[in-house]
Amino acid sequence: MFSALEGILVLDLTRVLAGPFCTMQLADLGARVIKIETPRQGDDARAYGPFLNGESIYFASLNRNKESLVLDLKSEAGRQIFLRLVELADILVENFRPGTMDNLGLGYSRLRDLNNRLIYAACSGFGQTGPYRHKPAYDVIVQAMGGVMSLTGQPGGEPTRVGASIGDITAGLYTTIGILAALRACDRTGLGQLVDVGMMDCQVAILENAIARFEATGEVPRGIGNRHPSITPFTSVKARDADLVVAAGNDALWRKLCQATGRQDLEKDPRFSTNEQRTQNAEVLGRILGEVFASRTRAEWLSVLEGAGVPSGPINTVADIMSDPQVEARQMIVEVDLPAAGPVRLAGSPLKLSGHPSQDSRPSPSLGQHTRPILRDLLGLSDVEIDRLAEKGVIG
Amino acid sequence: MFSALEGILVLDLTRVLAGPFCTMQLADLGARVIKIETPRQGDDARAYGPFLNGESIYFASLNRNKESLVLDLKSEAGRQIFLRLVELADILVENFRPGTMDNLGLGYSRLRDLNNRLIYAACSGFGQTGPYRHKPAYDVIVQAMGGVMSLTGQPGGEPTRVGASIGDITAGLYTTIGILAALRACDRTGLGQLVDVGMMDCQVAILENAIARFEATGEVPRGIGNRHPSITPFTSVKARDADLVVAAGNDALWRKLCQATGRQDLEKDPRFSTNEQRTQNAEVLGRILGEVFASRTRAEWLSVLEGAGVPSGPINTVADIMSDPQVEARQMIVEVDLPAAGPVRLAGSPLKLSGHPSQDSRPSPSLGQHTRPILRDLLGLSDVEIDRLAEKGVIG
Repeated sequence: MFSALEGILVLDLTRVLAGPFCTMQLADLGARVIKIETPRQGDDARAYGPFLNGESIYFASLNRNKESLVLDLKSEAGRQIFLRLVELADILVENFRPGTMDNLGLGYSRLRDLNNRLIYAACSGFGQTGPYRHKPAYDVIVQAMGGVMSLTGQPGGEPTRVGASIGDITAGLYTTIGILAALRACDRTGLGQLVDVGMMDCQVAILENAIARFEATGEVPRGIGNRHPSITPFTSVKARDADLVVAAGNDALWRKLCQATGRQDLEKDPRFSTNEQRTQNAEVLGRILGEVFASRTRAEWLSVLEGAGVPSGPINTVADIMSDPQVEARQMIVEVDLPAAGPVRLAGSPLKLSGHPSQDSRPSPSLGQHTRPILRDLLGLSDVEIDRLAEKGVIG
Repeated sequence: MFSALEGILVLDLTRVLAGPFCTMQLADLGARVIKIETPRQGDDARAYGPFLNGESIYFASLNRNKESLVLDLKSEAGRQIFLRLVELADILVENFRPGTMDNLGLGYSRLRDLNNRLIYAACSGFGQTGPYRHKPAYDVIVQAMGGVMSLTGQPGGEPTRVGASIGDITAGLYTTIGILAALRACDRTGLGQLVDVGMMDCQVAILENAIARFEATGEVPRGIGNRHPSITPFTSVKARDADLVVAAGNDALWRKLCQATGRQDLEKDPRFSTNEQRTQNAEVLGRILGEVFASRTRAEWLSVLEGAGVPSGPINTVADIMSDPQVEARQMIVEVDLPAAGPVRLAGSPLKLSGHPSQDSRPSPSLGQHTRPILRDLLGLSDVEIDRLAEKGVIG
């Protein structure tokens, strides 16, 4: 067995979420990821709650399978060590604001002169170009400016933030894609390149259907609750005891739904005969389905709908997911044993590759946990040299 | 200039959203993507609105830069042509329910015997294994079962569907990552592999922070409106005329926010002295900030906050995004000229690679637009042979 990215060395200067989410994918795929952290504090996310025995679980969830090297890039000695690592690296990932690496004297053009195979990935709020490039961003800023909040929420209600940090996460995924594509190009041409991903750009990309609707109709898309803007019924409904979701993505499924609920009369109702008409009459259809589903429990309906082949499911909480048999079968919850917090269950990787060994996840590193072995084994520094750098505070 | 995936041939059997979103990334990166469609209807999404002059803009938004080959895989002659294409291909992507390709006699093990370098990517609702593997899924089903709906919404309100189809889109992005990692492995080992991505798995992966919170605290995460569960203030606020978002991700930004709003008194208020205390007192702080922000317009506040270096921004609609100067500078809206609909503006690609030529997007193909050139140029079929296949309805 061969890890997909075996032999790839990644220098990881990222902090908080978007960048670390990217380098976690690379680490999960078998790359060696060296997380370069500032002395004393390290990644800001080490200070983000929730904590268990003083250890950040926020951080643990984003940094498995990585090594930690503490290096002061503001010192000349630290920069010299960094440049020696750049010579050996395949990939560098950073999520500073544009200009930060240049100000350290470590911008892309300098690093490329040292190693022209280097893939330099920069993930920032708004990208390396354009009028907003120097603006600071966090997840909620790009969820707002990128439009997804304007599409999420109840009809007539407030624009709503998505409860997962998709502003960061989609940027992390796109950065990973850009890096792997550049790696392929490098294998062919021998040359690295700059991968420039902006979080707001990624939000615009995921709006694709809303942009298409706006372009086709001129109507500004808004939050419409849980239904789909152009497929009906495709929404949540209330059973007697709890909500469930039902998706009849085509006419055949609609007919199955009518039969399964004992409402064959709806099949013949001209208001609901095509998907377009069902969508136009979504409100009245919603009221009718509300009455239908109120008559039985969620478990009863899920059983009926599954038997009829109508796509349906419960609205799970995180607690439900932690004990879901499919989640377990897919190993989507992994346990890592953290130094202070002890064993903790975290989200696993959805990348299931037949040729890739499924391996236990190594826990996120403590700050500077791998500083000495990295300097010794990769750069050949002696213990005396390492001690001297440590005394000066260049490493930690 | 060299497209990152130049020379890569992708057979694309995907329909609707998750799979086509994946193959659009591959096409944007320069791979040759041959979309294999069923005779007459083709991809289901060709029948999904909105339409312009009878042409689906839903489909156009997901299928740029691809070629369309109409091939009946239920006929023996169609399967033979398909198998000859498999011998030439680097990558195959499908998003059928598990078992569909096996039932056609075209399962992974057979295709691998023909071409052991083939990367076979299967993107399905629940993955190729586990008790739910045969269940049908759509975006709303995995948004519900995968937990993100339970985290999205107003406090005490309904679980809320995310207004973009992130159930499909995150699966499309993860499938792309799996394929590109497998391509790297193939370049090293000469062997392809099976990439198995489940939409629900991807939803669990993006919950990562919510799972960490549940694990650390035992509390089941719920929708809490627009604020962040562990960073405060990091939310939307109401100016006199419109909402905006503000994110003070650390104590220094909090102090800047107090100063910019003329509320230095809040800096010294013990209820708000650390992020943890601000989060514990998020409700009262929200009321205070509500009064502060109500006094001026959004434009005034954005100008003040930008001057003070406090991350902030408007909550944009799709209409706002279409004319945003940063979106324009980043070329995140591209125009394609569709055969029936004419010129239409759609979301572009956030993958900005310095070594990759920025090229005009080719519009989504009409059904079977490239059938003849593909069969002639890739497989060497004569016009007579092609005519005979067309007469039999094997191709279109």
